[in-house]
Amino acid sequence: MKAKLVITPKKAVLDPQGKTVASALEHLGYAGVAGVRMGKYIEIDLAPGTSAPEAERALNEAARRFLSNPVIEDYRLEIVE
Amino acid sequence: MKAKLVITPKKAVLDPQGKTVASALEHLGYAGVAGVRMGKYIEIDLAPGTSAPEAERALNEAARRFLSNPVIEDYRLEIVE
Repeated sequence: MKAKLVITPKKAVLDPQGKTVASALEHLGYAGVAGVRMGKYIEIDLAPGTSAPEAERALNEAARRFLSNPVIEDYRLEIVE
Repeated sequence: MKAKLVITPKKAVLDPQGKTVASALEHLGYAGVAGVRMGKYIEIDLAPGTSAPEAERALNEAARRFLSNPVIEDYRLEIVE
């Protein structure tokens, strides 16, 4: 079982990395880019036998407490088999 | 239409950020963590009317050429409506 955590800057927050990627794509001739947000991706392998609801609860807490900064970032947690 | 690009370090490559997150989770009492890989997440908003196959081709090329480092990183590209 795996947990996938995606952490992105909130819409209202400046994202200089995303802006850089967007302008790099444009300069290199990739048209059709309306905007880029750059975030973090954390893939957590869960030990066999871990309960999915319990892992989800614990990782939601971890994401809020120290993996993301809730003031400027949103996160999305997904547990997959 | 959006493109989601996930870039992760290859399995054989050391991932100090992932190791740090894994030990932080353990120290804070989250059991059941077998491993953590930390990567980048890039969300690209595509302008309306962009063709999905063309965007996929262009972004695969961009991912290989400058968004990821193919020597040490893998990437996964997904185009969603």
